[in-house]
Formats: sequence, C-alpha cells, structure tokens
Amino acid sequence: MKHTNNSNGIEQEIDALLKRLFPICRSITGEGVRETLSALQKYAPMQIREVPTGTKVFDWTVPKEWNIRDAYIKDPSGKKIVDFKRNNLHVVGYSTPVSARMKLSELKKRLYSLPAQPSRIPYRTSYYNPDWGFCIADQELKALKDGAYEVVIDSTLEKGSLTYGELLIPGKTKDEVLISTYMCHPSMANDNLSGVILTTLLARELMKKKRELRYSYRFLFVPETIGAITWLAKNRAGVKRIKHGLVVTCVGDAGAFTYKKTRAGDSEVDAAAAYILSHSARPHRIIDFFPSGADERQYSSPGFDLPVGSLMRSMYDTFSEYHTSGDNLDFVNARYIRESLELYLRLISLIEHNETFINKNPYGEPQLGKRGLYSLLGAQKSPDVSERALQWVLNFSDGAHSLLDIAERSGIDFETILTTSKALRAHKLLAPAARRRN
Amino acid sequence: MKHTNNSNGIEQEIDALLKRLFPICRSITGEGVRETLSALQKYAPMQIREVPTGTKVFDWTVPKEWNIRDAYIKDPSGKKIVDFKRNNLHVVGYSTPVSARMKLSELKKRLYSLPAQPSRIPYRTSYYNPDWGFCIADQELKALKDGAYEVVIDSTLEKGSLTYGELLIPGKTKDEVLISTYMCHPSMANDNLSGVILTTLLARELMKKKRELRYSYRFLFVPETIGAITWLAKNRAGVKRIKHGLVVTCVGDAGAFTYKKTRAGDSEVDAAAAYILSHSARPHRIIDFFPSGADERQYSSPGFDLPVGSLMRSMYDTFSEYHTSGDNLDFVNARYIRESLELYLRLISLIEHNETFINKNPYGEPQLGKRGLYSLLGAQKSPDVSERALQWVLNFSDGAHSLLDIAERSGIDFETILTTSKALRAHKLLAPAARRRN
Amino acid sequence: MKHTNNSNGIEQEIDALLKRLFPICRSITGEGVRETLSALQKYAPMQIREVPTGTKVFDWTVPKEWNIRDAYIKDPSGKKIVDFKRNNLHVVGYSTPVSARMKLSELKKRLYSLPAQPSRIPYRTSYYNPDWGFCIADQELKALKDGAYEVVIDSTLEKGSLTYGELLIPGKTKDEVLISTYMCHPSMANDNLSGVILTTLLARELMKKKRELRYSYRFLFVPETIGAITWLAKNRAGVKRIKHGLVVTCVGDAGAFTYKKTRAGDSEVDAAAAYILSHSARPHRIIDFFPSGADERQYSSPGFDLPVGSLMRSMYDTFSEYHTSGDNLDFVNARYIRESLELYLRLISLIEHNETFINKNPYGEPQLGKRGLYSLLGAQKSPDVSERALQWVLNFSDGAHSLLDIAERSGIDFETILTTSKALRAHKLLAPAARRRN
Repeated sequence: MKHTNNSNGIEQEIDALLKRLFPICRSITGEGVRETLSALQKYAPMQIREVPTGTKVFDWTVPKEWNIRDAYIKDPSGKKIVDFKRNNLHVVGYSTPVSARMKLSELKKRLYSLPAQPSRIPYRTSYYNPDWGFCIADQELKALKDGAYEVVIDSTLEKGSLTYGELLIPGKTKDEVLISTYMCHPSMANDNLSGVILTTLLARELMKKKRELRYSYRFLFVPETIGAITWLAKNRAGVKRIKHGLVVTCVGDAGAFTYKKTRAGDSEVDAAAAYILSHSARPHRIIDFFPSGADERQYSSPGFDLPVGSLMRSMYDTFSEYHTSGDNLDFVNARYIRESLELYLRLISLIEHNETFINKNPYGEPQLGKRGLYSLLGAQKSPDVSERALQWVLNFSDGAHSLLDIAERSGIDFETILTTSKALRAHKLLAPAARRRN
Repeated sequence: MKHTNNSNGIEQEIDALLKRLFPICRSITGEGVRETLSALQKYAPMQIREVPTGTKVFDWTVPKEWNIRDAYIKDPSGKKIVDFKRNNLHVVGYSTPVSARMKLSELKKRLYSLPAQPSRIPYRTSYYNPDWGFCIADQELKALKDGAYEVVIDSTLEKGSLTYGELLIPGKTKDEVLISTYMCHPSMANDNLSGVILTTLLARELMKKKRELRYSYRFLFVPETIGAITWLAKNRAGVKRIKHGLVVTCVGDAGAFTYKKTRAGDSEVDAAAAYILSHSARPHRIIDFFPSGADERQYSSPGFDLPVGSLMRSMYDTFSEYHTSGDNLDFVNARYIRESLELYLRLISLIEHNETFINKNPYGEPQLGKRGLYSLLGAQKSPDVSERALQWVLNFSDGAHSLLDIAERSGIDFETILTTSKALRAHKLLAPAARRRN
Repeated sequence: MKHTNNSNGIEQEIDALLKRLFPICRSITGEGVRETLSALQKYAPMQIREVPTGTKVFDWTVPKEWNIRDAYIKDPSGKKIVDFKRNNLHVVGYSTPVSARMKLSELKKRLYSLPAQPSRIPYRTSYYNPDWGFCIADQELKALKDGAYEVVIDSTLEKGSLTYGELLIPGKTKDEVLISTYMCHPSMANDNLSGVILTTLLARELMKKKRELRYSYRFLFVPETIGAITWLAKNRAGVKRIKHGLVVTCVGDAGAFTYKKTRAGDSEVDAAAAYILSHSARPHRIIDFFPSGADERQYSSPGFDLPVGSLMRSMYDTFSEYHTSGDNLDFVNARYIRESLELYLRLISLIEHNETFINKNPYGEPQLGKRGLYSLLGAQKSPDVSERALQWVLNFSDGAHSLLDIAERSGIDFETILTTSKALRAHKLLAPAARRRN
C-alpha cells in the first residue's frame, strides 16, 4: 500500500500520541485522565468537565477520586519483584492504600494472574468495592518463595471528581452525531488508547470542515460506564437530538474490521457502515447488537434506545491480548489506526450526504433535455449511467428513500447518486424532505 | 432411556386407562361418551354438560342421541360373521336400527371395506344423513358366499343430548389457555383415546400446581366438530379470554412429534412450541396451519381466529392405521403418551413463565454490583454468563420483548433468562409490562 | 405444439397486421400515427384524440407535428445510396427539412452508424432539439468515397397535434385496468409493432366479454413518454381509478417471457403475473421495477405511483436487434405474439376473478352436508380435494385474503379455489369484501 505524504504525517502524529499517552495510568477518575485530556486538547479543543464525587447519576453515584503515586512488592531479600512504575497494570485499579509486611500465603490472596497466559499481566479493577491487590505474570507468581514480603500501595481514594472531555462541533442543524470513546484504561494500547487517539484526530478533521457540516458532532471522552451514564444523566434533555452514534474502541490492531450494529439493527448508521465496509475492499464482518460491550450499551439502554453502533477492528474480548499486558505498543500500529480513521471519515461523509429528497416535478418525468441535464453530469463510465441515475433519483425521491436507499436499490454507487442529486437540486427538481426519524 | 419410578407410575396409569376405555363405543352423543367422562372424573374433576337435541349452535343443530346395544350379521348358515361386540368399528356410526334378511347382493350395498388394507376394518359414520351400514375387512367381504343374510342393528336414535366434559382450573389471571381434545371416536387408540388420556392427566398435573398458575386453564372433552361448535356457541362471550390454545390428538404412537401452527403462524404458543421441540432432542417437524384437521379448525374459523395450535406425534391422516382397526392398543404405548405429556407440561411451563417486563431503571444500566446481583445467581457455566444474561434481560425488557424473545435473540437458554428475571424482579429492577395481545 | 383453427385464424390476422403496419413511418406525432390508429380501429373501436401543438402537459409541451414525404442521399455519381423509401430508419426522427449539396466530410457529421453491428441501420431521433441527420449501415458508411453529395429531407415540422388512441371498455365497476402501449416507433417489429398489435387484439377480445367484466379496461395507444405524460395531464383526476396496469411492449420475439414488477413490487398484478407465469410451463423470469424502460416509468412517477407492471418476451435493450433495422419482420413471429396474447388474457382473467370475500358464517364451520356442498363441486382429482378447498376458502375468506392468496397459501390451483368460491356464494356463505386498496 502506497503512503501519501499526508498519510505519513498523520501516522507520525499517531505514533507520537501512542508513545506520549501509553505510559499514563488512567482510571475512571484521577490525574491520569486529566493529563491525557490536557494532551489531547492540543489536537481538538475539547472542554474538560469535572463532576464532583457523590453526584447522583441515575442509579449510580460518582465515586471518590483515585490517585496513585507508587506501588511495589519487595521479596524477602528486599528486591522489588512487582513495580507499578514498570507497568501500571500491576496494581488492581482503585486499590486502597496499603503498607505492610506479610507472609507469601497471605499475599497470594491479593495476587491475580492468568495461568493460561503465564507471561502476561492481567488487568483488574475494583471500583465500587474498596479493596487492594496486585496483578502479576503467572510464571512470576509461581516462582515466588516463602518468606516475608513488603507490600506498598501509595494511593489515595478521596473526594474529588470524575473528569471527562466534551467537544461539540456545531453544524447547519442541531441534529447530532455522537462519537464516544472511553479513556479509563491504563497502559493498554488497542483497548482503548487507539480509540482515544482516533476520536481526537477525527474531531480535528471535522473541525476543519466545520462550515460544511450538516450535522452537529458531539465528541465524548469519558470513563467507560460511569462516564457515559454521567453524561446521559446531565444531558437527558439533549439526548433526543442524537440521530446517529458511534462508539470508538479497539481500532489499532491488524484485525479485520468489525461493525456492531445498533440495537434497532436497521438504523441509517447501520446501512451506511455496511455500505462503506462493503465498498472498502477490506476484510470485515458485521454483527448484531448485544447489550454487553462498551458504552453503546448505555446509549442503547431501553430508556434512551439511541441508534449507536460501533466500528472496530478486532472486537474487545475476541483477541488474546485483551485486558492483559499483551495489549501494548507492539500490538497496535499507527497505520492501522490511520486506516480506521479513514473509514470513520468515509462513514461520516456518507451520513452527512445521505439526504432524502422530494421530487418537485413528481407527475411523470421532468423534461431533462431542455435543462441540459444529460450533459451537466459530465463524462460517465457509460453513456447511459447518467440518464439511469437521474431516473432513479427522480423516481425514488418520494420522501421515503434516502440517497443511500436509492444507491442500494439501483446498484449505482453512492457518489454517482449524490452527484446526480446535486445536479437535480441545482435545477430545482429536488427539495429536501422533512426528516422521517427523530 | 431411564424410567424414573414416577414415570413408571404414570405409565401404569396410562396403561390402565387405555385398557379400561378402549373397548367403549363412543360417538358424538350417547352413553359411551358419558361412561368415558365418568371414568375420567376420577382423575380430573370435570363438569359433565348435557346439551339437548335440537339446540341451535350457530349453523348447526345438536342431533338426536345415538345408542347401540348390539349389531351383527349372520351368514346363510347362521354364523355371526360380523359382530359389534367383537369390534365396535363394524357398525357405521349413527346407524339407524335394522332387523332384516337380505340377499348378499343387497347386503353388499351396506358394507364398507378397504381393498388396499384387506385385513383392516374401516371407520365410517353417517351422523347427519340417517342411514345404516357395516364395516368389514375386505378379505372377509370377498369371501362372502351368496345366500340370505340376517342383519341386526339394535340401536336407537332419539331425542336426548350431546355430552361433553369441561374443567376450568382458575389461575391468577382470567386469561385462559384452552386445552381441547375430542372423544367421539370408538375403539381407536391413537385417534383419539391417546389424546383423551393425555388431556386428563395434564389436567390432573395442573390441578396440583393450581396456586402457582398465572393463566386459567380450560379443558374441553368434546365430540369433534359439533362439540367444539356447541361449546363456542354457548361460550361466545368468554372466547376472547383465550390467549393460547392447543388441540390434543394422536399423541400415542412411536412417530416423531408434529406441531401444527396456529392460523396466525406467529403466535406465542408457536414460538413456545418451536423452542420446546428444538430443545427436546426429539425428532420433530413444524407445519403451517391448514383449515382441515381437528377442532383447531373451529377455534380458528375467521369469526374467532384463536391462537390454537396442535402438538401431536404422527399427525392424523398420515399413518396407515388411521381410521381403521389397525389403530389399536398395539399401535400406541404408555411410554409414548407419557413422553407427549412431558412435552405438553414443558410447553405449558414455558407459556406460564414467558412474561414480558419493563426495566424500571431504563436510563443506562443499573448498578448491579451494589445489589450483589452478580453473585445472587449462583454458580453459572462460565463466570460471565450471569452478567450477560442480566444485561440481555435489562436491555430488552422494554415491554416489546418477552423472556422467550430475549432467550431466542441472546442465544441464552430460557431457564437462565427466567432465573435472571426473577433475581431482577426481587431487586425491583423489573415490573410486568401491560399485555400486548388480546 | 398443436394449433387450433382459432389459433391459426388469429395468427393470420397478426401476420396481416404486421405486414400492413410495419412499413408505416410512425413518430411521436404525424400522419403515420393517424394511419396506424385508423387501421386498428377496424379491430378495436378506439377514439382518436388530437392534442394541439403547444399544449402544456406537466413539465412538457406538445411539440410541433412532424411529417415526412421523402429523404435520400445521392452520391457524387447521382446514385441514391440512402433512401427513406427503402427503410424509414434511414432518417433521424423529427429531422428538419434540408436540400443541399455537401462534401463527404461535412455529410459525415450528419451520419449515424453502428460500428459493432456494421450491417444494421440504427434508430435515432431528435424530438426536442431541431436537427437533421441520416442513419446508415456502418459498412456502407465506410465505403463512401470523397466528393459532393446531394442531401434531401422533404419533411415538415409545423403546428399540428399529437395523436393517440383511447378505448374504455366499461365493466361492472368503475375500477380500471390500464393497458398501455406505445406506437411512436417507425419500422421496428418487436419494439413496438408487436405490442401495438397485441394490445389491439386484446381489446377486441375484452370487447367480446364486455358484459362479464368486473373491471373497466382503459386501452391507450400513445407515443412513448410525451403521449403517456399527455394522457396523465389530461386525465389527472381519473388516474386514481386505475387499480392495475400493464405496459405492452416487445411481445413478438422468440425470447423467454419477462415480467417487470410494479414500483411497489407486491401489487396484485405482480402476484397474478407470477402465478400465471409459474403455471405457464414457459421459460420466464421476473425482475424488479427500475425507473427506466417504457411508459411504466411515467405511470410509476412518484406523484402517481400506479401499480403498473409490464409483461414482455425479450425485454427492450437486452437483444442485439433492439433499436436497429435488425428488429424487422424476420425477428418476430405471429405465433409468438399469439402466445403472448394468450398469457395476457390469462393474466386478465385471473385479475378479473381474484375477488376477496367475507365468510358469512364465520363462527365455526358451516354445516356443508345439509347444503349438499360436497357433491356440488362434481368430480375432483381426489375425493378430498373439494372438502379441502371448501375449508380453505371458508377459513381464509376474512376480507384480508383474495382467492389468489388462498390458492398460493393452500397450494390448490386457482381454478379450483374459484369454482369453490362460486359454490359457496351460491349458498350465500360468502359475500364480497370491501376493497382493501385504492
């Protein structure tokens, strides 16, 4: 595959962001989140919101803020055998502070490992049940010898706030496209630093096209679950403006693309994603909605039931590196993230342009010849493509078929249908239809 | 297959009922019906209803009551060659009385046989056209010699009544499940003594669970066609309470299970039967509704259009023994009837528990951890099954999906979905939805 | 295949019409149209309508009338190398008059040929852009030598009128079936002299059955596009009476039958055509609607959206002879047109008889025996067919299923279902349902 200079430029930016942000210890609250969002603000001018500990958000309460400075285990000889500064996955997320000496048998109750993947450190959290623990490679766990171990977790769990980033790029209408990613995971690259970086650069691209946008775009950088629920609780009235949505996660590995459909399964974003993927010449699969996964499950809860899909590469929980130290910078690649970004841009472009029109001359065909419309479209693959496209767009612009519907039904590519619709609009033969869906 | 003690007990009861009831000469009216219902009352406390001859029931009129004591044909040598007391199929049902001598050529006009099954006696009736006749094995018919034959049918066709059994087991709601069987056939075992016995024992089982039942159960033991029409005519106002129905017939042979769908084809009982059969590990097939068959055709007539299916083994008119003396106690088996009964019980249990709920915390997910819900469900096949099931039930409890719908869509078995819904109800996270269908 | 005398008679008529009408130079206006319609009036008593030049018809204006007497090109030696009187395809339709001498290089800008089919003359028109030109076999074009050519087109393009034929055969209801064909093409046999002849003979057949017809039949013989639009503009209020429609074109070649569905795709005429074709034992295919093609695209424009299909043999634009001098009397055949006519008659018969009924005794089955209904139907293939058909018609005559719906669902042929419905109507067990569609 040939890289354009611009591709190279974007890949270099992605690389820099991966290296800059990977080491930060993020969680659902705390300084790691703030540091990450602050770094991203240089690319996309998001607002950083703080929601105080104790705020009620639907069935949940914003938890205490967690911060950690250091954590380690020293073996009986005084050697650091587990060191948070080497890998922040070593500490169970939201671990309460501890400083103690204990026998191996006691310590082992606090150690988590993956026997099936003995060289990898697992990822564990205990957000709502105050607890502490360490994660460790199973081969290292098995090598521990009896004796007295020193255990230190230098953390705080105190009143503070939940932090998230939000950016609204206003378009010509107040109808919104929601682009949501989660940034509560510590050092894991595909899940979900890849999604955070893609979302940031996507926001930057849309900022550049600001004046042309039909939809308004709302970008959210939230901690998973509690963050999405917090945003929904604080923006309940505005939710109805969301016409399409995407959750960005796991977009950085070499795997085939995976599109997870919206709850309804036949939303416009589903049709658009299917079209983009099938015209992408990239391996992909499309799967039905299921209510586990990432934050689409909050946006798709029955009280909201928003049309939110998710475009990924290898889906969470389907690759062995998932939620382990194997999901590191060797597992993802700037090129893969750039490819994913390009698909997101194409998908958004399709949604932007997928208008529904009304034929203003619906009684028989309009006389195209007198308007010079056959030539207006310029050279086409075959002489009759333009005429066929004109007939399809005119006949099916009945307020019930979008341009994508017409492309699918006619077998003519979307670009040709779109160009045709522009020519017809220029001659006042089409007018925008009233929206069908809320 | 292992038989439990209880299975053996039930099979012995079935055997006893088969032997006790098989010889009785039943018809659409008469003492045979009363004797049969009276014997069944020991198992299920049904009401015995009498509807007088001449009663108008929609387009029909309750016919005269038919009773028969004896019937025979003696050959020229005085030997009884056809004897009602040996097999009651020998007499055409509803034969008018006769006592005559006649030449073989005359007699033959009154004799019915099956040339294709020369050793079997056919089953014939003439309910609404006063007439008489005998049914005989074709090989015996062919062996008859010329001469004068003595013919006696000692029957009466007089004012009386049509008799049927009815049992209502009240449940928590007035919504009804109709279980209907027909008991107008003389000595034939699969069609439909098997259905009569299964229906009786099914009623007994539901009587035991009376306090737990969500639906009320209406059991009908009627003569086919005229009985169902009579019941419908006398209960026209109550028909709208029937939410699900099943016609029980041909449940005693070794054949694969056959489910005949309701007229609508997508009724809840259809989905439930399909689920039970596909999880039964028994060979089966599901066929579309057709308006011939048994009493489902009355319940599904366009003026009622009730959701009544039929769960059978070999369907009527598809086995060679059908409506002949071959449909005898060698053709059916207590074990097959018990297996059928078990499927009916499972099907009813599924319908009983297939509620539709509303998620009471529909905005985002409820916080399950603080309620201890992950552990409440106890040990599961895999650690995440319970979490997945909770998410499926919560997300799709939107008033539009029943638990069975959720099981089908999630691929999680109904029992797990049901258990999950109970746990969620215990935590007031679900409430029953208003019924969608009438 | 055996030809009946009647078939032979009709084929002789078709042959005579093909020979009589093929040489006439038709266009969207002019004397050729009038001469053709006048000849057809002997078969079907249509009205000939004249709409003046300049009349506004929706987005269009009725053009000037074009007439042509002669046209030729003489080569430098004075030899006629192109002669309108030998083949009227030689002149571009609607050519303005010309009389000039010009060099070959100048002349060539006015000559159209088909390099891929070098022996055939193409068909070209220039209705709305005043222009002139000649069509010529490519092999003859290539053989032309330099020199001065004499060019004559003796045509007129003047105020006049657009001419079309219309015949309304009134039936018992004002609901209409539209049968539309176009007759604006000069000497081409399949496209569309075959359609014009079939439509004429179809009208004659329906005239004979006038008293029995349930629907009124409106036959249109119009110039393509402008004629259909003109008729629609002048009959806008009456359009809503059209319940079914067919465009007749390309019905004379040896190809398999092609049915192009209506825009909705599930109209009654679509179901009827599918039934007729699948029971015809002839090769055929059914294709979805597309908004190019013949006048169905006007009738199906979004402002009208009429249920108009098209039954053809080889569809326009799919055979190499299309729009060339190869589409001549060798390409079509009276037998093929007769076969097509027979399918149209069967299709119309099916639509005529495809009523929807209401069961007047909808509560349980009516007692058929007391009405002698089992025998009324006479001999059937198997004894139970009549009973099954009675049960199907009674059960599904609920106002929502037409007789064709019942035939499709039961698998019983339409004729049996129809005969059964007649017997039931005779016993007042069925009554016509109110129409479902407008």
